[in-house]
Formats: sequence, structure tokens, C-alpha cells
Amino acid sequence: MTHRKGRKPQNLPQKSAKSRKEAAEIRRPTGLTRRSKAGLWIYGVHAVLGVLENPARSIERLVVSPEAARRLGPDFDRSVAERHIMAETLNQRAIQVEIPAGAVHQGVAVLTKPLANPDFEKTCTPAGPDCSIVVVLDQITDPRNFGAVLRSAGAFGALAVVATDRHAPPEGGALAKAASGALETVPVVRVTNLARALETLADIGYWRTGLAAEGPEPLAARPDRSAVALVLGAEGAGLRRLTAEHCDSLERISGAGGLNVSVAAAVALYELSRVTN
Amino acid sequence: MTHRKGRKPQNLPQKSAKSRKEAAEIRRPTGLTRRSKAGLWIYGVHAVLGVLENPARSIERLVVSPEAARRLGPDFDRSVAERHIMAETLNQRAIQVEIPAGAVHQGVAVLTKPLANPDFEKTCTPAGPDCSIVVVLDQITDPRNFGAVLRSAGAFGALAVVATDRHAPPEGGALAKAASGALETVPVVRVTNLARALETLADIGYWRTGLAAEGPEPLAARPDRSAVALVLGAEGAGLRRLTAEHCDSLERISGAGGLNVSVAAAVALYELSRVTN
Repeated sequence: MTHRKGRKPQNLPQKSAKSRKEAAEIRRPTGLTRRSKAGLWIYGVHAVLGVLENPARSIERLVVSPEAARRLGPDFDRSVAERHIMAETLNQRAIQVEIPAGAVHQGVAVLTKPLANPDFEKTCTPAGPDCSIVVVLDQITDPRNFGAVLRSAGAFGALAVVATDRHAPPEGGALAKAASGALETVPVVRVTNLARALETLADIGYWRTGLAAEGPEPLAARPDRSAVALVLGAEGAGLRRLTAEHCDSLERISGAGGLNVSVAAAVALYELSRVTN
Repeated sequence: MTHRKGRKPQNLPQKSAKSRKEAAEIRRPTGLTRRSKAGLWIYGVHAVLGVLENPARSIERLVVSPEAARRLGPDFDRSVAERHIMAETLNQRAIQVEIPAGAVHQGVAVLTKPLANPDFEKTCTPAGPDCSIVVVLDQITDPRNFGAVLRSAGAFGALAVVATDRHAPPEGGALAKAASGALETVPVVRVTNLARALETLADIGYWRTGLAAEGPEPLAARPDRSAVALVLGAEGAGLRRLTAEHCDSLERISGAGGLNVSVAAAVALYELSRVTN
């Protein structure tokens, strides 16, 4: 693996004036703050590997700690080589400066740009012999939950995750980390009006299943479903009235209440893909 | 609701010597650091409500921000009154000092003591007409994942979560937050030797299903299962050899790979409780 030592690994003792100056330098290296605002830091092993393997991603910087570089191994080295980029070696603490407090970066982070918004109808058009599933998120505002839904959507082969462009988290490091690479493989389509998007999904052949704790029927077999939109609301609040009115059925998960929204999404995806494949 | 204003809400401007002194006072109020070491801070709305409603919990302090106090409403007030305790009003920042950086406390935290370890056999003895399920965790070291499994175990009515006393996170704030109250309702049994615990579970009537990505059969209907132990390993590493050898079957989740361990647990609990109830 090739590392460009653009900056020496630095230790940051707490007391001396010199070390405070070094810390300040790490906090504001030339041009970096400006670029961070324009770009987007994604961190964590699986999230970064996903970015490296996604040709749609530009890569402005790739930083890795010496410990992570030793641990990551040949898959990472190959991905870096194929992108014709150089990894910079930075210590753990210098990487932490770039990302939110408390976020676990696992010694690797990449500065990139947000992805373009894919075309809604094109992305969601049912295709292939298996059941086509899209996941529609109504005001899931927590980035970790959003990312976790994305991960499960990827695991169960969903075509896309559809969300509103407001009241949903933007693409960001915490979302990407929770998605564990799925942000790069599952299209996230942002729409202005969720009710209109649900109308379009019906027009192109989707059965729209709203998940609701008080749903009148349990999530269950429907052999005629070849395209299903799974519609999920926020924990506690649930689906908004207008969203629920745009669902063909409201269904509940049998045997459980009080599930985390990303867990509920996965259980529903399991049931839907099991039944219809 | 009754608030004891033991400490005034304080603003902490960054620059003056006076404000630094105030900050230092908030960081080390008399006796608090010592007590924090003996006790355990649990934070977040659902986790704290769970503690208040659990008679097995001692409560040493309950702190709440003015904003949270307004938001929490009558359920919280009733729980506090029933415990015959007083809530102290502290500002958001003073609460943050008590808990790990980056943790979201939602303006409420309680200082308590870890729960006693319940008796393994007594807790896991199958009971009632429904399928009895226990969840066995093999080296799930991430507290958030552990807590999220606990939450799903509670949602699906599992009797207990069994884990080793080493290579598993201790009871703590991040675990309790992810469990969203389930730490108070689902017994967590810590055992010294997992293989021996799995032998005991077989002796008292459990079928031991190990969840494994490469499992030879899909998780599916088995009407003869009236007591099932769901055995889960760490993401990536999976079940250890000795653990897998103590399972009666190794099964996989159909249609999905790469699920988060707590999500996989929930999907499996859904399948097992659906089939056997």
C-alpha cells in the first residue's frame, strides 16, 4: 500500500505552548476547512471501502492511521490502487479532528462529494423476475436510523430508498457509517412531495404497504405482490395522515411492538421478500 | 413535577478566567466523581423511564434539564412521585459532563447501581403456553449492538438474554440507551462458560439454533420447538467453533447477508416466534 506522508504522524501532549500550536495546526491545515465545507467526510472501514469501490464518487482525500493501514489488508490496498490515488498517513487524533465528536472512525476517512440525486421513476421501475421492493421513509430524521435502514434495504436487495428532501438527514458521515457501505450501492432518491411520489409508485405497479403498529392486518403472504413499496414513519409518531392515506394497506409486525424503526424495516423486508420471491 | 434546584443552570462562555473556574466546578462537584465511579449513569428518555419503573433499581440521583422537564410530561412526573425522589434541575451541558462525549442524553439522566445477576436456570426455565425463547450472545462486544438486541428481545417477549461475563459489555449508559428501557424488563444473565450454559439449556428442554451466514438450512418452521435458544455471534467473526458445536442446528436468514447483528437477531426472533406461537 502506498502512503503519502504529507503530514507526519503527530503526538499531542497536553501541556506545552509548542504542542498547543501543533494542535492548532492540525485543526486548520491550509485550505482544509474550506474544502471540508464543500465536501463530505465519510469514515469507518465498510463505509470508506464502499466509497472507494463506487465509481460515481470523486475522492479528494483519503486518510488512514498507521494502525488501520496495517489492519485493512489487501482489499483496501487494491481499491486504493485501482482509484489511482494516494492514502495519506495521519494519526488517530488528527483524523478525529475532521469528524464529529464521539464518532468512531476506525482509523480511516475519505473526503468526497455528495452523490447526485438519481431519477425517481427510472430508479424505481420494477425489473427482473424477483419481487421489486422500494423502501419509502416518512420523516426518519435520525441519520443513524436512516443509514441502518439503508443497510438492511441493501441486504434484502431493495431497488431504492425514497425520502423527502426535507425532514430527512442529508448524506453525511453518521448516515454512511450506519449504512456500512450500502449508501454506495442502494440509490437514495429524494423527492419534494412524498404523497405525489406514492401516487407515481402506484401508477408504475407498486402495492404500497404502510407499516403501522396499529395496522389492521399482520404483514403476511400476498402472492400477487410483484412490486411492493414499504412505507415507514418515525418511531413514536408513525406515518403521517396524508402518507397513510396513500398506502394500499396498513400492516403491523406480528408478535412485537416497540421495535427500532430500522429493525422494523428489516423484519418487514424479510417478510416481504420471503413471501414474494 | 418537583425539581430541587441544587445547582443553578449555568452558561459557560469560553474566554474568561471566571467562566473557566465555573466550568471546573461543574466538572467536579463535591463527591460526584467518586459516586459516579461506584454507580452507573443511565440517560435518555426511555432508558431513564425504565429505571424509574423498575423497583429493583436503587436511585441515587435524577437530573433533568428544564427543557426536558417541560417535554417529559405526566408519565415521568408520576414515576418520579411514586419513587418518592426529587429530580434535580441541571442544564444540558452540566448533564453532558457526567456521560460519555457524543452520547445523546435527551436532557435526562439517572445515577443508579448495576442490577444483580439473575439465576441462570431459574430465569431460563421454559414457562407458559407460548414458545419460550432465550437469546444467547457469543462475544457481542459493542454496547450499542448488545442494547439493540436486548430491545428486540424484549419486543418479541424473550425470557432472557444470556452472555458471558467476559467479552461482553458491562451494564452501561450506551447499552441502556440502545435497549430503550428493555434493560429493566429483560433479564441479562451473565455466565462464566457459554458452552456449559448451552449444555444446561439443552438439559432443560431448549433447541439451540445458531444463526450463521453459511448455515446449511434457512431459518424456518419447526412446529416441535417449544423452547428455542437463539445463539448469535459477532458480526464478521460469527459463532466460535466451540459455540457452534453446542448448537443443535445452524441456520441462515434467507434472502439477506450483511445484516447488523441486532437486526439479524430481530429477524430471527420474528421468524421463531411466528412459527412456534
